[in-house]
Amino acid sequence: MTENSIKFGILGCAQIARKVSRAIHLSPNSTLYAIGSRSIEKANKFAADNGFPETVKIYGSYNEVLNDPDVDAVYMPLPTTLHVHWGVLAAEKKKHLLLEKPTALSVADLDLILEACRANGVQFMDGSMWLHHPRTAKMKDMLRDTQLFGQLNSPDLDSLGALGDVGWYCIGAILWATDYKLPKTVCTLPKLTCNQQGVILACGASFDWGEDGKAATFYCSFLSNVSMDLVLYGTNGSIHLEDFTIPYEESSASCDLSSGANFAELQVGWTVKPVKVQVASELPQEALMVQEFARLVENIKKNGKSPDGKWPEISRKTQLVLDAVGKSIELGCKPVDI
Amino acid sequence: MTENSIKFGILGCAQIARKVSRAIHLSPNSTLYAIGSRSIEKANKFAADNGFPETVKIYGSYNEVLNDPDVDAVYMPLPTTLHVHWGVLAAEKKKHLLLEKPTALSVADLDLILEACRANGVQFMDGSMWLHHPRTAKMKDMLRDTQLFGQLNSPDLDSLGALGDVGWYCIGAILWATDYKLPKTVCTLPKLTCNQQGVILACGASFDWGEDGKAATFYCSFLSNVSMDLVLYGTNGSIHLEDFTIPYEESSASCDLSSGANFAELQVGWTVKPVKVQVASELPQEALMVQEFARLVENIKKNGKSPDGKWPEISRKTQLVLDAVGKSIELGCKPVDI
Repeated sequence: MTENSIKFGILGCAQIARKVSRAIHLSPNSTLYAIGSRSIEKANKFAADNGFPETVKIYGSYNEVLNDPDVDAVYMPLPTTLHVHWGVLAAEKKKHLLLEKPTALSVADLDLILEACRANGVQFMDGSMWLHHPRTAKMKDMLRDTQLFGQLNSPDLDSLGALGDVGWYCIGAILWATDYKLPKTVCTLPKLTCNQQGVILACGASFDWGEDGKAATFYCSFLSNVSMDLVLYGTNGSIHLEDFTIPYEESSASCDLSSGANFAELQVGWTVKPVKVQVASELPQEALMVQEFARLVENIKKNGKSPDGKWPEISRKTQLVLDAVGKSIELGCKPVDI
Repeated sequence: MTENSIKFGILGCAQIARKVSRAIHLSPNSTLYAIGSRSIEKANKFAADNGFPETVKIYGSYNEVLNDPDVDAVYMPLPTTLHVHWGVLAAEKKKHLLLEKPTALSVADLDLILEACRANGVQFMDGSMWLHHPRTAKMKDMLRDTQLFGQLNSPDLDSLGALGDVGWYCIGAILWATDYKLPKTVCTLPKLTCNQQGVILACGASFDWGEDGKAATFYCSFLSNVSMDLVLYGTNGSIHLEDFTIPYEESSASCDLSSGANFAELQVGWTVKPVKVQVASELPQEALMVQEFARLVENIKKNGKSPDGKWPEISRKTQLVLDAVGKSIELGCKPVDI
């Protein structure tokens, strides 16, 4: 812990909090300062199991974390149904908020949280780690290079998970690829699989941007073996990767870039094969996420800057499209305009 | 030319005939015997440009090829609108028929051709070369290995081309992956791009097999850079390849197999990375296709066997699904039951 680092409190002992607490530890501008659970025993056990330093404060309630004046920011991996209550309360207690996804059950709920963050001048960011991997920035460079890639016209994505969970990533990646321009129309695919309780096990949707030519499709399923594919097609090239939300390895990640490919004479092969683009990462992407969040909090806390509006906007647009997919499912796979 | 080899006549001088004439030459049981074009000049030029041996007969009409009693089989790369006329005539002249895809404008049209082949005891096969690459059989082995792959539950495919052209491959690959079980429902994706003449430049569709859990989606476009992706997701594994219709190289082709993958502790990586499965090919896949076709023709011609019903069935099912996709487009992206 350095004197200047941002002090994080964690609310809840979710599995994902193990990964993020390590990320807070790895991020050079951040300190794990406190953890709170509904019971002090659970919090103690979680701290011991994960080798937390003795300096970490252990609280037997979420409120105690929020009332600790030394906590700068909270990481909140609570069940989605609790996000509005605890997210709004955290903002009112002037805690910067790193909120696990999916951020809320609907845009209306998310707006309550975002409005509380705005009103209290605290930074909001959702827990989409992959956005912070340097490979993601590298891919954006490739997408922007029209000679290499041309115009984007059909990002396509398939991934494991139910809509609210991995669907968040799918929609997030599609919006990322299209510079967060909302699609005009959202329509779910005919295959929708639910369990007996009505929980979505597998679903997909297709997006249409109308006149500008872009289209995107995603499919997410709890019934497939782990897969995290992202494929982007442009007029001049394409990018493929199979590990977009969690890279195979921490130290670097790669994607396949195909640009200017065509068929060889007689169509018996290709003129150009894809090249593997390898991008090193100094820190795991979740630590980069924490570092970026802590940097923004430092700017607010020490330099009097305003919270960065980019991150809440990304979350809100993702949620907005997620809501539209949900509505299309409700309507029996009918198209929904955004 | 060996004495026993099957003698092929080619109808028309299409670009693709250059590749297939080479394939006939490479296939050990086949001989390029004749080529016919609407003009003798065109046929002569095509033969010269492509280095045809002097022994190849050059005809200034399609009829002359069909009337040559030494021609065993015809390869027909004519425009799709001409397939019914010339396909039926070829069958009536007792010529075995290797027909370029798309086979017909509709199932009704294709049925006229298939019925003529049946009535005249001649072999029918469409020109889907990729089915003959040994990689394709290898992938089927992997798909059938439930330990490796589990149950197939969501083949997904994206490729370049308009519906009738590359859509044929997409639908064919989806049917291949599902052992030619027809989907229950077909629904086109909301993004449909046509040119001013109403020709489809980009479209896609999603298929649902109902209770058995399978789903598939394809997207094909003339607006993207060359891409030929096929991705198959099972409960235990997945297969990825990016060159499914035309392998990057002739001598071998590969696919990535991921089986039993899971996340590493803390979800900071994967327990298993995909492995590249390399499959050698003694001949280019188009030569393997010709060889298989000639083998069936030999069996009929010399051993008195009946034509193999597998190939016409594959073509017909592909056409049936293609028709349903076309109908869904006509209905404005409404689901169509098969």
